[in-house]
Amino acid sequence: MLQEGKYLVIKPALLIIDMQNDFIREGSPLRIGGAGAAIGNMADILDLFRVKGHPVIHVLRIHRQDGSDVEISRRDLFRKTPFAVEGTPGSEVISELSPRSGEYIIHKTRMSAFMGTDLDLLLRSLGADTLFVTGVQTPNCIRTTVFDAFALNYETYLVDDAVAAQTPEIHQSNVRDMAAIGIHIVKTEEIRGFL
Amino acid sequence: MLQEGKYLVIKPALLIIDMQNDFIREGSPLRIGGAGAAIGNMADILDLFRVKGHPVIHVLRIHRQDGSDVEISRRDLFRKTPFAVEGTPGSEVISELSPRSGEYIIHKTRMSAFMGTDLDLLLRSLGADTLFVTGVQTPNCIRTTVFDAFALNYETYLVDDAVAAQTPEIHQSNVRDMAAIGIHIVKTEEIRGFL
Repeated sequence: MLQEGKYLVIKPALLIIDMQNDFIREGSPLRIGGAGAAIGNMADILDLFRVKGHPVIHVLRIHRQDGSDVEISRRDLFRKTPFAVEGTPGSEVISELSPRSGEYIIHKTRMSAFMGTDLDLLLRSLGADTLFVTGVQTPNCIRTTVFDAFALNYETYLVDDAVAAQTPEIHQSNVRDMAAIGIHIVKTEEIRGFL
Repeated sequence: MLQEGKYLVIKPALLIIDMQNDFIREGSPLRIGGAGAAIGNMADILDLFRVKGHPVIHVLRIHRQDGSDVEISRRDLFRKTPFAVEGTPGSEVISELSPRSGEYIIHKTRMSAFMGTDLDLLLRSLGADTLFVTGVQTPNCIRTTVFDAFALNYETYLVDDAVAAQTPEIHQSNVRDMAAIGIHIVKTEEIRGFL
Protein backbone atom coordinates (compact mmCIF):
# COMPACT_ATOMS: atom_id res chain seq x y z
CA MET A 1 0.00 0.00 0.00
CA LEU A 2 0.95 3.63 -0.38
CA GLN A 3 2.14 3.84 3.22
CA GLU A 4 5.13 1.72 2.26
CA GLY A 5 6.08 4.41 -0.23
CA LYS A 6 7.76 6.35 2.54
CA TYR A 7 10.49 3.74 2.51
CA LEU A 8 10.43 2.60 -1.09
CA VAL A 9 11.52 4.31 -4.26
CA ILE A 10 8.77 3.74 -6.79
CA LYS A 11 8.98 4.55 -10.47
CA PRO A 12 5.46 5.62 -11.31
CA ALA A 13 3.66 6.17 -14.58
CA LEU A 14 0.20 7.59 -15.10
CA LEU A 15 -2.24 5.92 -17.49
CA ILE A 16 -5.21 7.98 -18.70
CA ILE A 17 -7.46 5.66 -20.66
CA ASP A 18 -10.04 6.43 -23.37
CA MET A 19 -10.75 10.02 -22.30
CA GLN A 20 -11.86 10.88 -25.82
CA ASN A 21 -14.72 13.07 -26.98
CA ASP A 22 -16.74 10.13 -28.33
CA PHE A 23 -16.82 8.49 -24.89
CA ILE A 24 -17.15 11.58 -22.69
CA ARG A 25 -18.87 14.54 -24.33
CA GLU A 26 -22.51 15.33 -23.65
CA GLY A 27 -24.61 14.15 -26.56
CA SER A 28 -22.16 11.53 -27.75
CA PRO A 29 -24.02 8.26 -28.39
CA LEU A 30 -21.36 6.18 -26.61
CA ARG A 31 -21.01 8.49 -23.62
CA ILE A 32 -20.03 6.89 -20.30
CA GLY A 33 -22.63 8.23 -17.89
CA GLY A 34 -20.48 8.54 -14.78
CA ALA A 35 -17.40 10.12 -16.33
CA GLY A 36 -18.14 13.77 -15.65
CA ALA A 37 -17.26 13.80 -11.96
CA ALA A 38 -13.93 12.04 -12.52
CA ILE A 39 -12.53 14.55 -15.04
CA GLY A 40 -11.50 17.12 -12.42
CA ASN A 41 -9.65 14.46 -10.45
CA MET A 42 -7.85 13.25 -13.56
CA ALA A 43 -6.83 16.83 -14.33
CA ASP A 44 -5.44 17.18 -10.78
CA ILE A 45 -3.42 13.95 -11.07
CA LEU A 46 -2.18 14.95 -14.52
CA ASP A 47 -0.98 18.29 -13.10
CA LEU A 48 0.82 16.48 -10.29
CA PHE A 49 2.62 14.10 -12.68
CA ARG A 50 3.59 17.07 -14.87
CA VAL A 51 4.99 19.01 -11.93
CA LYS A 52 6.95 16.00 -10.70
CA GLY A 53 8.17 15.06 -14.18
CA HIS A 54 6.86 11.50 -14.06
CA PRO A 55 5.75 9.77 -17.29
CA VAL A 56 2.21 10.39 -18.52
CA ILE A 57 0.69 7.96 -20.99
CA HIS A 58 -2.53 8.79 -22.82
CA VAL A 59 -4.11 5.56 -24.02
CA LEU A 60 -6.60 6.03 -26.84
CA ARG A 61 -8.94 3.71 -28.70
CA ILE A 62 -8.41 4.56 -32.38
CA HIS A 63 -10.07 2.70 -35.24
CA ARG A 64 -9.59 2.72 -38.98
CA GLN A 65 -12.45 4.33 -40.85
CA ASP A 66 -13.60 1.04 -42.39
CA GLY A 67 -13.91 -0.60 -38.96
CA SER A 68 -11.76 -3.57 -39.97
CA ASP A 69 -9.93 -3.38 -36.63
CA VAL A 70 -13.04 -3.28 -34.43
CA GLU A 71 -13.87 -6.36 -32.34
CA ILE A 72 -16.08 -8.55 -34.54
CA SER A 73 -18.80 -8.52 -31.88
CA ARG A 74 -18.92 -4.72 -32.12
CA ARG A 75 -18.91 -4.35 -35.89
CA ASP A 76 -22.67 -3.85 -36.11
CA LEU A 77 -22.52 -1.12 -33.48
CA PHE A 78 -19.59 0.53 -35.29
CA ARG A 79 -21.39 0.49 -38.64
CA LYS A 80 -24.43 2.16 -37.06
CA THR A 81 -22.50 4.57 -34.87
CA PRO A 82 -18.83 4.86 -35.82
CA PHE A 83 -16.69 5.70 -32.79
CA ALA A 84 -13.09 6.71 -32.15
CA VAL A 85 -12.32 6.93 -35.86
CA GLU A 86 -8.80 8.12 -36.62
CA GLY A 87 -8.63 11.76 -37.61
CA THR A 88 -12.09 12.72 -36.33
CA PRO A 89 -12.74 15.22 -33.51
CA GLY A 90 -14.56 12.45 -31.62
CA SER A 91 -11.35 10.44 -31.37
CA GLU A 92 -9.40 13.30 -29.76
CA VAL A 93 -8.63 13.60 -26.05
CA ILE A 94 -11.05 15.92 -24.26
CA SER A 95 -9.69 19.45 -23.99
CA GLU A 96 -9.33 19.30 -20.19
CA LEU A 97 -6.70 16.56 -20.51
CA SER A 98 -5.03 17.43 -23.81
CA PRO A 99 -1.63 15.73 -24.16
CA ARG A 100 1.43 17.97 -24.05
CA SER A 101 4.76 17.59 -25.77
CA GLY A 102 6.83 14.95 -23.97
CA GLU A 103 3.83 12.86 -23.00
CA TYR A 104 3.22 9.47 -24.55
CA ILE A 105 0.30 8.42 -26.72
CA ILE A 106 -0.65 4.77 -27.16
CA HIS A 107 -3.28 3.77 -29.72
CA LYS A 108 -5.23 0.59 -29.10
CA THR A 109 -8.10 -1.27 -30.79
CA ARG A 110 -9.06 -3.49 -27.88
CA MET A 111 -10.07 -2.95 -24.25
CA SER A 112 -6.76 -3.71 -22.56
CA ALA A 113 -4.10 -1.06 -23.11
CA PHE A 114 -1.58 -3.93 -23.30
CA MET A 115 -3.20 -5.90 -26.11
CA GLY A 116 -1.62 -5.33 -29.50
CA THR A 117 0.33 -2.27 -28.28
CA ASP A 118 3.86 -1.47 -27.17
CA LEU A 119 2.75 -0.29 -23.72
CA ASP A 120 4.61 -3.01 -21.82
CA LEU A 121 7.77 -2.33 -23.83
CA LEU A 122 7.43 1.42 -23.27
CA LEU A 123 7.00 0.99 -19.51
CA ARG A 124 10.05 -1.29 -19.33
CA SER A 125 12.05 1.21 -21.36
CA LEU A 126 11.00 3.98 -18.98
CA GLY A 127 11.86 1.81 -15.98
CA ALA A 128 8.33 2.27 -14.63
CA ASP A 129 7.30 -0.34 -12.06
CA THR A 130 4.17 1.25 -10.57
CA LEU A 131 1.07 2.27 -12.50
CA PHE A 132 -1.62 4.75 -11.55
CA VAL A 133 -4.70 3.98 -13.62
CA THR A 134 -7.39 6.55 -14.49
CA GLY A 135 -10.05 6.96 -17.18
CA VAL A 136 -13.06 5.02 -18.45
CA GLN A 137 -14.79 2.70 -18.11
CA THR A 138 -14.30 0.63 -14.97
CA PRO A 139 -15.62 -2.82 -16.09
CA ASN A 140 -14.02 -2.85 -19.53
CA CYS A 141 -10.91 -0.90 -20.58
CA ILE A 142 -9.93 -0.06 -17.00
CA ARG A 143 -10.36 -3.54 -15.57
CA THR A 144 -8.77 -5.45 -18.46
CA THR A 145 -5.79 -3.09 -18.33
CA VAL A 146 -5.51 -3.46 -14.54
CA PHE A 147 -5.68 -7.28 -14.67
CA ASP A 148 -3.06 -7.37 -17.45
CA ALA A 149 -0.85 -5.00 -15.42
CA PHE A 150 -1.23 -7.35 -12.44
CA ALA A 151 -0.30 -10.37 -14.57
CA LEU A 152 2.73 -8.48 -15.94
CA ASN A 153 3.87 -7.80 -12.36
CA TYR A 154 3.33 -4.05 -12.23
CA GLU A 155 2.41 -2.64 -8.85
CA THR A 156 -0.96 -1.15 -9.71
CA TYR A 157 -2.99 1.64 -8.14
CA LEU A 158 -6.55 2.19 -9.27
CA VAL A 159 -7.55 5.77 -8.57
CA ASP A 160 -11.10 5.14 -7.47
CA ASP A 161 -12.43 8.70 -7.95
CA ALA A 162 -10.64 9.17 -11.28
CA VAL A 163 -12.25 6.24 -13.08
CA ALA A 164 -15.90 5.84 -13.99
CA ALA A 165 -18.57 3.48 -15.25
CA GLN A 166 -22.16 3.83 -16.46
CA THR A 167 -23.47 3.48 -12.89
CA PRO A 168 -21.95 3.65 -9.38
CA GLU A 169 -23.03 0.05 -8.75
CA ILE A 170 -21.12 -1.27 -11.76
CA HIS A 171 -18.13 0.78 -10.70
CA GLN A 172 -18.19 -0.49 -7.11
CA SER A 173 -18.57 -4.18 -7.89
CA ASN A 174 -15.54 -3.97 -10.17
CA VAL A 175 -13.49 -2.09 -7.59
CA ARG A 176 -14.36 -4.86 -5.11
CA ASP A 177 -13.01 -7.54 -7.48
CA MET A 178 -9.82 -5.59 -8.19
CA ALA A 179 -9.18 -5.00 -4.49
CA ALA A 180 -9.66 -8.74 -3.92
CA ILE A 181 -6.67 -9.64 -6.12
CA GLY A 182 -4.42 -7.06 -4.46
CA ILE A 183 -4.83 -3.96 -6.60
CA HIS A 184 -4.35 -0.86 -4.45
CA ILE A 185 -7.48 1.28 -4.40
CA VAL A 186 -6.71 4.95 -3.66
CA LYS A 187 -8.29 8.36 -3.89
CA THR A 188 -6.88 11.30 -5.83
CA GLU A 189 -6.04 13.21 -2.68
CA GLU A 190 -3.93 10.33 -1.33
CA ILE A 191 -1.54 10.33 -4.28
CA ARG A 192 0.08 13.72 -3.77
CA GLY A 193 2.18 12.77 -0.76
CA PHE A 194 3.84 9.82 -2.44
CA LEU A 195 5.15 11.14 -5.73
CA MET B 1 -27.23 -16.05 -29.54
CA LEU B 2 -27.65 -19.80 -29.55
CA GLN B 3 -30.91 -19.54 -31.50
CA GLU B 4 -28.86 -18.51 -34.52
CA GLY B 5 -27.04 -21.82 -34.25
CA LYS B 6 -29.89 -23.52 -36.06
CA TYR B 7 -28.74 -21.81 -39.23
CA LEU B 8 -25.01 -21.50 -38.62
CA VAL B 9 -22.28 -24.09 -38.49
CA ILE B 10 -20.22 -23.36 -35.42
CA LYS B 11 -16.91 -24.95 -34.55
CA PRO B 12 -17.05 -25.21 -30.80
CA ALA B 13 -14.41 -25.94 -28.19
CA LEU B 14 -14.95 -26.47 -24.48
CA LEU B 15 -12.69 -24.76 -21.95
CA ILE B 16 -12.64 -26.17 -18.41
CA ILE B 17 -10.57 -23.80 -16.31
CA ASP B 18 -8.69 -24.41 -13.03
CA MET B 19 -10.78 -27.38 -11.86
CA GLN B 20 -7.89 -28.65 -9.77
CA ASN B 21 -7.91 -30.18 -6.31
CA ASP B 22 -6.20 -27.16 -4.70
CA PHE B 23 -9.04 -24.88 -5.80
CA ILE B 24 -12.00 -27.22 -5.37
CA ARG B 25 -11.55 -29.91 -2.72
CA GLU B 26 -13.09 -29.55 0.72
CA GLY B 27 -10.40 -28.48 3.18
CA SER B 28 -8.12 -26.92 0.58
CA PRO B 29 -6.99 -23.49 1.80
CA LEU B 30 -7.63 -21.86 -1.58
CA ARG B 31 -10.99 -23.50 -2.17
CA ILE B 32 -13.55 -21.54 -4.23
CA GLY B 33 -16.65 -21.60 -2.08
CA GLY B 34 -19.29 -21.78 -4.79
CA ALA B 35 -17.67 -24.42 -6.99
CA GLY B 36 -19.43 -27.53 -5.70
CA ALA B 37 -22.76 -27.00 -7.40
CA ALA B 38 -21.16 -26.36 -10.78
CA ILE B 39 -19.18 -29.61 -10.96
CA GLY B 40 -22.14 -31.75 -12.03
CA ASN B 41 -22.97 -29.31 -14.82
CA MET B 42 -19.37 -29.32 -16.03
CA ALA B 43 -19.42 -33.13 -16.06
CA ASP B 44 -22.62 -33.07 -18.15
CA ILE B 45 -21.11 -30.64 -20.67
CA LEU B 46 -17.89 -32.64 -20.80
CA ASP B 47 -19.91 -35.79 -21.57
CA LEU B 48 -21.74 -33.97 -24.34
CA PHE B 49 -18.53 -32.73 -25.98
CA ARG B 50 -17.07 -36.24 -25.73
CA VAL B 51 -20.11 -37.82 -27.34
CA LYS B 52 -20.12 -35.24 -30.13
CA GLY B 53 -16.36 -35.42 -30.65
CA HIS B 54 -15.76 -31.69 -30.20
CA PRO B 55 -12.44 -30.47 -28.75
CA VAL B 56 -12.09 -30.37 -24.96
CA ILE B 57 -9.38 -28.20 -23.43
CA HIS B 58 -8.46 -28.52 -19.77
CA VAL B 59 -6.75 -25.30 -18.68
CA LEU B 60 -4.67 -25.69 -15.53
CA ARG B 61 -2.71 -23.28 -13.37
CA ILE B 62 0.62 -25.00 -12.80
CA HIS B 63 3.53 -23.42 -10.92
CA ARG B 64 7.15 -24.37 -10.47
CA GLN B 65 7.97 -25.52 -6.98
CA ASP B 66 10.09 -22.43 -6.20
CA GLY B 67 7.21 -20.10 -7.10
CA SER B 68 9.35 -18.10 -9.50
CA ASP B 69 6.49 -18.04 -12.01
CA VAL B 70 3.80 -16.85 -9.57
CA GLU B 71 2.50 -13.28 -9.95
CA ILE B 72 4.74 -11.10 -7.77
CA SER B 73 1.72 -9.84 -5.83
CA ARG B 74 0.92 -13.45 -4.86
CA ARG B 75 4.39 -14.60 -3.88
CA ASP B 76 3.78 -14.12 -0.15
CA LEU B 77 0.60 -16.18 -0.36
CA PHE B 78 2.39 -18.88 -2.35
CA ARG B 79 5.27 -19.09 0.17
CA LYS B 80 2.78 -19.49 3.00
CA THR B 81 0.39 -21.82 1.16
CA PRO B 82 1.89 -23.27 -2.03
CA PHE B 83 -0.81 -23.97 -4.62
CA ALA B 84 -1.02 -25.73 -7.97
CA VAL B 85 2.58 -26.94 -7.75
CA GLU B 86 3.63 -29.17 -10.65
CA GLY B 87 3.64 -32.85 -9.80
CA THR B 88 1.53 -32.54 -6.63
CA PRO B 89 -1.92 -34.12 -6.15
CA GLY B 90 -3.29 -30.62 -5.48
CA SER B 91 -2.42 -29.55 -9.00
CA GLU B 92 -4.35 -32.39 -10.62
CA VAL B 93 -7.79 -32.10 -12.20
CA ILE B 94 -10.54 -33.26 -9.84
CA SER B 95 -11.50 -36.88 -10.45
CA GLU B 96 -15.00 -36.02 -11.74
CA LEU B 97 -13.46 -34.22 -14.73
CA SER B 98 -10.27 -36.19 -15.34
CA PRO B 99 -8.88 -35.57 -18.83
CA ARG B 100 -9.01 -38.46 -21.27
CA SER B 101 -6.69 -39.35 -24.08
CA GLY B 102 -7.30 -37.05 -27.04
CA GLU B 103 -8.21 -34.07 -24.89
CA TYR B 104 -5.96 -31.05 -24.66
CA ILE B 105 -4.16 -29.75 -21.58
CA ILE B 106 -2.95 -26.16 -21.36
CA HIS B 107 -0.73 -25.06 -18.47
CA LYS B 108 -0.83 -21.41 -17.44
CA THR B 109 0.73 -19.26 -14.71
CA ARG B 110 -1.61 -16.31 -14.98
CA MET B 111 -5.37 -15.76 -14.78
CA SER B 112 -6.15 -15.57 -18.48
CA ALA B 113 -5.85 -18.88 -20.31
CA PHE B 114 -4.45 -16.90 -23.26
CA MET B 115 -1.56 -15.20 -21.46
CA GLY B 116 1.77 -16.89 -22.03
CA THR B 117 0.16 -20.03 -23.50
CA ASP B 118 -0.46 -21.47 -26.96
CA LEU B 119 -4.23 -21.56 -26.48
CA ASP B 120 -4.96 -19.09 -29.30
CA LEU B 121 -2.66 -21.01 -31.65
CA LEU B 122 -4.25 -24.32 -30.66
CA LEU B 123 -7.78 -23.01 -31.25
CA ARG B 124 -6.79 -21.65 -34.67
CA SER B 125 -5.16 -24.97 -35.53
CA LEU B 126 -8.34 -26.78 -34.52
CA GLY B 127 -10.44 -24.34 -36.53
CA ALA B 128 -12.48 -23.53 -33.43
CA ASP B 129 -14.42 -20.26 -33.63
CA THR B 130 -16.82 -20.60 -30.71
CA LEU B 131 -15.84 -21.14 -27.08
CA PHE B 132 -17.89 -22.55 -24.23
CA VAL B 133 -16.29 -21.45 -20.98
CA THR B 134 -16.64 -23.33 -17.69
CA GLY B 135 -14.67 -23.58 -14.42
CA VAL B 136 -13.52 -21.21 -11.67
CA GLN B 137 -13.54 -18.50 -10.62
CA THR B 138 -15.88 -16.03 -12.27
CA PRO B 139 -14.15 -12.69 -11.48
CA ASN B 140 -10.59 -13.81 -12.17
CA CYS B 141 -9.55 -16.69 -14.44
CA ILE B 142 -12.96 -16.98 -16.07
CA ARG B 143 -13.47 -13.29 -16.75
CA THR B 144 -9.95 -12.53 -17.96
CA THR B 145 -10.15 -15.51 -20.31
CA VAL B 146 -13.58 -14.43 -21.57
CA PHE B 147 -12.48 -10.83 -22.19
CA ASP B 148 -9.36 -12.02 -24.02
CA ALA B 149 -11.50 -14.41 -26.09
CA PHE B 150 -13.78 -11.47 -26.95
CA ALA B 151 -10.78 -9.34 -27.97
CA LEU B 152 -9.43 -12.19 -30.09
CA ASN B 153 -12.79 -12.39 -31.90
CA TYR B 154 -14.00 -15.75 -30.61
CA GLU B 155 -17.74 -16.12 -30.27
CA THR B 156 -17.93 -16.78 -26.55
CA TYR B 157 -20.54 -18.53 -24.43
CA LEU B 158 -20.26 -18.36 -20.66
CA VAL B 159 -22.07 -21.31 -19.12
CA ASP B 160 -23.61 -19.54 -16.16
CA ASP B 161 -24.31 -22.61 -14.04
CA ALA B 162 -20.97 -24.26 -14.83
CA VAL B 163 -18.77 -21.46 -13.49
CA ALA B 164 -18.48 -20.30 -9.89
CA ALA B 165 -17.15 -17.63 -7.56
CA GLN B 166 -16.76 -17.27 -3.80
CA THR B 167 -20.28 -15.84 -3.50
CA PRO B 168 -23.37 -15.65 -5.76
CA GLU B 169 -23.21 -11.84 -5.64
CA ILE B 170 -19.65 -11.75 -7.01
CA HIS B 171 -20.65 -14.25 -9.67
CA GLN B 172 -23.73 -12.30 -10.73
CA SER B 173 -22.08 -8.86 -10.98
CA ASN B 174 -19.43 -10.36 -13.24
CA VAL B 175 -21.99 -12.12 -15.41
CA ARG B 176 -23.76 -8.76 -15.78
CA ASP B 177 -20.56 -7.10 -17.05
CA MET B 178 -19.81 -9.94 -19.49
CA ALA B 179 -23.35 -9.88 -20.86
CA ALA B 180 -22.99 -6.11 -21.33
CA ILE B 181 -20.12 -6.51 -23.83
CA GLY B 182 -21.96 -9.19 -25.81
CA ILE B 183 -20.84 -12.46 -24.25
CA HIS B 184 -23.60 -15.05 -24.56
CA ILE B 185 -24.80 -16.22 -21.15
CA VAL B 186 -26.32 -19.70 -21.28
CA LYS B 187 -27.30 -22.55 -19.00
CA THR B 188 -26.01 -26.11 -19.25
CA GLU B 189 -29.35 -27.47 -20.40
CA GLU B 190 -29.46 -25.02 -23.32
CA ILE B 191 -26.25 -26.31 -24.87
CA ARG B 192 -27.33 -29.81 -25.81
CA GLY B 193 -29.53 -28.82 -28.73
CA PHE B 194 -26.84 -26.86 -30.50
CA LEU B 195 -23.86 -29.16 -30.69
